[in-house]
Amino acid sequence: MARIIDGKMISQQIKDECKEEVAVLTEQGKHICLAVVQVGADPASSIYVNNKKKACAYIGIESLAYELPEETTQEELLALVEELNEREDVNGILVQLPLPAHIDEDKVIQTISPLKDVDGFHPASVGAMCIGQPGFLSCTPAGIIQLLKRSDVEIEGKECVVIGRSNIVGKPMALLLLRENGTVTVCHSRTRNLKEVAKRADILIAAIGKPRMINHEYIKEGAVVIDVGIHRENGKMCGDVDFDDVVDHVSAITPVPGGVGPMTIAMLMRNCVESAKR
Amino acid sequence: MARIIDGKMISQQIKDECKEEVAVLTEQGKHICLAVVQVGADPASSIYVNNKKKACAYIGIESLAYELPEETTQEELLALVEELNEREDVNGILVQLPLPAHIDEDKVIQTISPLKDVDGFHPASVGAMCIGQPGFLSCTPAGIIQLLKRSDVEIEGKECVVIGRSNIVGKPMALLLLRENGTVTVCHSRTRNLKEVAKRADILIAAIGKPRMINHEYIKEGAVVIDVGIHRENGKMCGDVDFDDVVDHVSAITPVPGGVGPMTIAMLMRNCVESAKR
Repeated sequence: MARIIDGKMISQQIKDECKEEVAVLTEQGKHICLAVVQVGADPASSIYVNNKKKACAYIGIESLAYELPEETTQEELLALVEELNEREDVNGILVQLPLPAHIDEDKVIQTISPLKDVDGFHPASVGAMCIGQPGFLSCTPAGIIQLLKRSDVEIEGKECVVIGRSNIVGKPMALLLLRENGTVTVCHSRTRNLKEVAKRADILIAAIGKPRMINHEYIKEGAVVIDVGIHRENGKMCGDVDFDDVVDHVSAITPVPGGVGPMTIAMLMRNCVESAKR
Repeated sequence: MARIIDGKMISQQIKDECKEEVAVLTEQGKHICLAVVQVGADPASSIYVNNKKKACAYIGIESLAYELPEETTQEELLALVEELNEREDVNGILVQLPLPAHIDEDKVIQTISPLKDVDGFHPASVGAMCIGQPGFLSCTPAGIIQLLKRSDVEIEGKECVVIGRSNIVGKPMALLLLRENGTVTVCHSRTRNLKEVAKRADILIAAIGKPRMINHEYIKEGAVVIDVGIHRENGKMCGDVDFDDVVDHVSAITPVPGGVGPMTIAMLMRNCVESAKR
């Protein structure tokens, strides 16, 4: 039976570390503030935004909530972002995605100052991460590195296979594993013999977006498996990995829920604290 | 016997295409200008700078040469870069690397406007490339993609292995091969069983920086091999690949000299033309 990598516990550790740092910063007279901007009232987005506000409250970060109507224009949103860029009392800016179809997400992300880009989505943040310069790391892949490190999974010299090449998970994940000296392969929908390639992995990151697609046929015996997927099937949550099928076959695995999910918010809090310290 | 991928010929094609485009732009009243900044008189740098000036002259791009003394301060260099950023008649800015030790290269690169960053080294350029947004592509890896495409080497679905993870070749190379739908693995000094990993490659990119290290033991029979190395041994040029040892074993290979080398300048010219068109 595999070791279960407990993302809930590890994310709690990180949030508690942030809380301690914030207490010290507060004593030094620093105030930390995250602006959270939501456009429209998508129910999933509202849940995410709410969880971020709760995490801020727990840690001692002020959250400034901007709940804009669905019909907000791109110009209005950009003007708000620019105002938040200027405000000295705002350390981080988070615009909840997805945005309504009439707004250009790329344009909005590019308008956020890289100095306040706590999501790590700005091209300058991505580029800095790629070439090893200081900057905010994309939260989900940075959280996965923490999951591995705090579970004593060695990355250096290991074969790491990332399935999926999205801008917010697959590609930054590959770059961060490379930074940790892993030998990194990125697979995707055009990969031939995906099972064979995935089976090389000592550490397999599944970020495909297909419920329970990855079964034991894709996994080398004893591999460590990180499941980035979040799906709801018949009222139950599941990931990209068929947990029950692989759990006796792997050495360690993240569950869904309670694996990668909670890490994203923890790393967002970490980025906010870093922003205040700079 | 392998097919020899002729970088000299392909780079000439690209330069001729640029020349035609520049002629059209000139007729439209546009003038294209590349500022080339060199600090000190490193002989290798002087040769590179000279070759770039010659390519500009061939294509019809004005080159503005700034030959600054070795003792130029960082502040002076940054002031020049900022002046060039502002000048409307300058489309591209190239600061020849390496810079003298008393100047912070990263700081200089970050000061070049991403709109004129024809080397593609600015973090915002690297990030844009990573997430598939418009921006200047790093010249050497972009040149390698052109070598493959113009030699009818299909990348999609192929196993591509990049040996080396530098900021100017290895990492951008991996991202561009991924964009072309290759299954991409990045190896480096900490990779275990490098021979075994390299042998998976349908397309092998050698960018290690060690003369003739890659022999037939690293290469699958029939693979396509791109040699990014440039070394001088006993007065003769060689690459990272032991050409004579592998030439009967591979299906296609770039020679050194005359392979990847000439592509870098051709792609720099391409970037200058793109910059003028924006």
